[in-house]
Amino acid sequence: MHARDAHMNATFGWVSSANMALFTDMYELTMADSYLRHGLNQWATFDLFVRKLPPHRAFLLHVGLEQAVHYLLNMRFNEDAIHYLRQQKVFSEDFLAYLRDFRFHGHVWAMPEGTVFFPMEPVLRVTAPRIEAQIAETFLLNTLNANVMYGTKAARVVLAAQGRGVADFSPRRDHGTDAAMKVARASYIAGCVATSNVLAGHLYHIPITGTMAHSYVMSFPTELDAFRAYAADYPHNAVLLIDTYDTLQGARHAITVAREMRARGHELRGVRIDSGDLVTLSQQVRRMFDEAGFPHVLIFLSGDLNEYRIRDLLAAGAAADAFGVGTQMGTSADAPFVNGVYKLVEDEAGLKVKLSTGKVSLPGRKQIYRFYRDGIMVRDEIRMHDEPAPPGGEPLLKEIIRDGALVAELPSLQAIRERAAAQLAALPEPLKALEVSQPAPYPVEISARLASLRDAMIARAREIEVA
Amino acid sequence: MHARDAHMNATFGWVSSANMALFTDMYELTMADSYLRHGLNQWATFDLFVRKLPPHRAFLLHVGLEQAVHYLLNMRFNEDAIHYLRQQKVFSEDFLAYLRDFRFHGHVWAMPEGTVFFPMEPVLRVTAPRIEAQIAETFLLNTLNANVMYGTKAARVVLAAQGRGVADFSPRRDHGTDAAMKVARASYIAGCVATSNVLAGHLYHIPITGTMAHSYVMSFPTELDAFRAYAADYPHNAVLLIDTYDTLQGARHAITVAREMRARGHELRGVRIDSGDLVTLSQQVRRMFDEAGFPHVLIFLSGDLNEYRIRDLLAAGAAADAFGVGTQMGTSADAPFVNGVYKLVEDEAGLKVKLSTGKVSLPGRKQIYRFYRDGIMVRDEIRMHDEPAPPGGEPLLKEIIRDGALVAELPSLQAIRERAAAQLAALPEPLKALEVSQPAPYPVEISARLASLRDAMIARAREIEVA
Repeated sequence: MHARDAHMNATFGWVSSANMALFTDMYELTMADSYLRHGLNQWATFDLFVRKLPPHRAFLLHVGLEQAVHYLLNMRFNEDAIHYLRQQKVFSEDFLAYLRDFRFHGHVWAMPEGTVFFPMEPVLRVTAPRIEAQIAETFLLNTLNANVMYGTKAARVVLAAQGRGVADFSPRRDHGTDAAMKVARASYIAGCVATSNVLAGHLYHIPITGTMAHSYVMSFPTELDAFRAYAADYPHNAVLLIDTYDTLQGARHAITVAREMRARGHELRGVRIDSGDLVTLSQQVRRMFDEAGFPHVLIFLSGDLNEYRIRDLLAAGAAADAFGVGTQMGTSADAPFVNGVYKLVEDEAGLKVKLSTGKVSLPGRKQIYRFYRDGIMVRDEIRMHDEPAPPGGEPLLKEIIRDGALVAELPSLQAIRERAAAQLAALPEPLKALEVSQPAPYPVEISARLASLRDAMIARAREIEVA
Repeated sequence: MHARDAHMNATFGWVSSANMALFTDMYELTMADSYLRHGLNQWATFDLFVRKLPPHRAFLLHVGLEQAVHYLLNMRFNEDAIHYLRQQKVFSEDFLAYLRDFRFHGHVWAMPEGTVFFPMEPVLRVTAPRIEAQIAETFLLNTLNANVMYGTKAARVVLAAQGRGVADFSPRRDHGTDAAMKVARASYIAGCVATSNVLAGHLYHIPITGTMAHSYVMSFPTELDAFRAYAADYPHNAVLLIDTYDTLQGARHAITVAREMRARGHELRGVRIDSGDLVTLSQQVRRMFDEAGFPHVLIFLSGDLNEYRIRDLLAAGAAADAFGVGTQMGTSADAPFVNGVYKLVEDEAGLKVKLSTGKVSLPGRKQIYRFYRDGIMVRDEIRMHDEPAPPGGEPLLKEIIRDGALVAELPSLQAIRERAAAQLAALPEPLKALEVSQPAPYPVEISARLASLRDAMIARAREIEVA
């Protein structure tokens, strides 16, 4: 590899459509080779689900399906990958030949993006030749764990803002570039109104937002000079950052500029406060602008915000029209991972459960039904896929890939965002709380048939394996 | 954009060398356009540093410079980017024309990757035309914040393992694909011995590792069948996962297979325990293998490990030869972000400091000197760049880019890893503790000249701006 390519790789991780199949854990490949040698590449079913909610969460928001689907439709091992694997001196030539023609031939059922979900509910089900399903595990978990984490966190921030706009300001603190792109997309799905990430705006058609940093103000001889320059340059969209030196003095400078703009036929759009006592300062600044005849100037708050601080700011009467939320939303700082797992639940030998350390899974292919009353979700029920649908239940899993081909239309980002808004609006009030005691107060029931199958499986597995 | 491209973007974030300059916060561009209009594109200097240590950390490990350098050398705005920006209807045509010819012309001084650093010490200093330095802010912070976080976390895990091997098992829980690639690279630099991430192994030449999952064991009629199959397929490198059903029974099955392997002239390499009481189980399993005549069979432990659990496991006498660490290392779960900032410290008008809310920065271009005694670092001193070097101090900032061109050789990953090992070996003992009270007990001193310049700057800025 050329040195320049190595640097490119180091910069971006360099996961591209050409090599994404190699983005997998080594053991997926050693297991796969072994399956091939032992004639174990029959079809099998894996569920992707979480066993318990992350701290403070009462629900999860499903995001990332489009990315998972694209991966499954396009994962290939190119010659470069085959060559690298051969160099490891652990894989059989039969397996390398198999990988050369590899593509995904299986079926996928999944919840639509923007769907609220709960522990033990599969959000994605893969039925495929065992090797195909196994190699996909790492990427599917990476993509869905991250996206669900981002979407859930952003949904909480949006709920806390009570209708005020929330913008994603997170790129500088996200875990790499791909993380920042996923945060922008997931937080927009969850109800954020814009992102500061220009590339995400471009590639996903998300509104972009941003005005000035403290360094801008410091680059002019005085704060007033900086504000005047910016207002002249952006007469229709000027939001002035007023806390570089002294926030109240900054507000006075902004009012001076607002008057000058009005004299030219323009209106200052807003001011941003990024530090200090945001409750008191925002109230003082609001009063100053109101008294000066600028009641429509918006107040944007930012600076180490999260859902808890936004809730507390609003409860304390902060005069906020919108929030810019960065680090803590983009890193889901109070719960920085989602423990999604991907478990074998059925193969040609029958149903499967895992027993170790009480980490029991639900065997077999399943469907999830959601029940609503007066537009509010009241309970979910998990049934075997071939059980009759219960009356009034909304089936959450939809077929999306059959025999390796897309069989459903992927919704637009706007449609996904609307589904998320409808799902969040249908949350029972207790689930909107920002701190919840575990387990979350939402009933996820298991059909009698599924429960008895699971219990029988557990008993049989213990008998066979532990005897 | 074609629908297929949109899905590609959604999968990978699609940050490539072609569009990486657009990976920036919107305000970097609005500020830049304004600087251009007001003739403020003179040279300026920005420092990248952290103001305080993340929770529990006594030091930070610098990782990510190669990625930052590659970005600066290659950032360009292509026609697609220009077209998108024009559509926003906020930028001047002069600015768009400027972006079309954009490239980085500045100078960069930075600490080498693998260097330990502390709050207020610039790890990277950019001196460039103001617009170039400003647009680069978002990517530089994204890249260095994430990499420093990963490297620092992994260094703690490696320290806790006291010489035992640590492997990165994190891809399924990392924040997207780029995060997983960066974790693999950063944790290898910090002293991990391998990664499960095959693509990272390929692109960065990091050893890869992995054996089997629980689903492998469940794919055979019995656990013993699974172990026999795997041992037959991988006679030189078999590590058997023994906790799918019952760990001690699993150990007995593994011993059976170890005997069969020995009869064929091979040796079982090891067993892995991924759940349960790892202290007791590992001791029991160790004893079983020792008594059966297999003292060289290695015991690998995994399952929700982090530096604290590894320390506690070893203190309690766990029989562990190596650890697989995933989620908590790859997400730096106890401190999931590093608050690196990028601050204007000097421009053609003179030195600069930021005052708001006590977030004082150190003005001007600086050098950092590190002093060692008997091979252990004892204190750092920050001086103005043109102050004489103090005798015996190792200057930490090196020139790496001059006039937009690379002027130093980028070290190999192995060389970076060796530097990190040497730096970690030179840490004073109190800094190796996993929980530290803030501020960290390491002296970072400021030269008398720098301190008086800073104090004068603060006084002058207050006088000018707050009056």
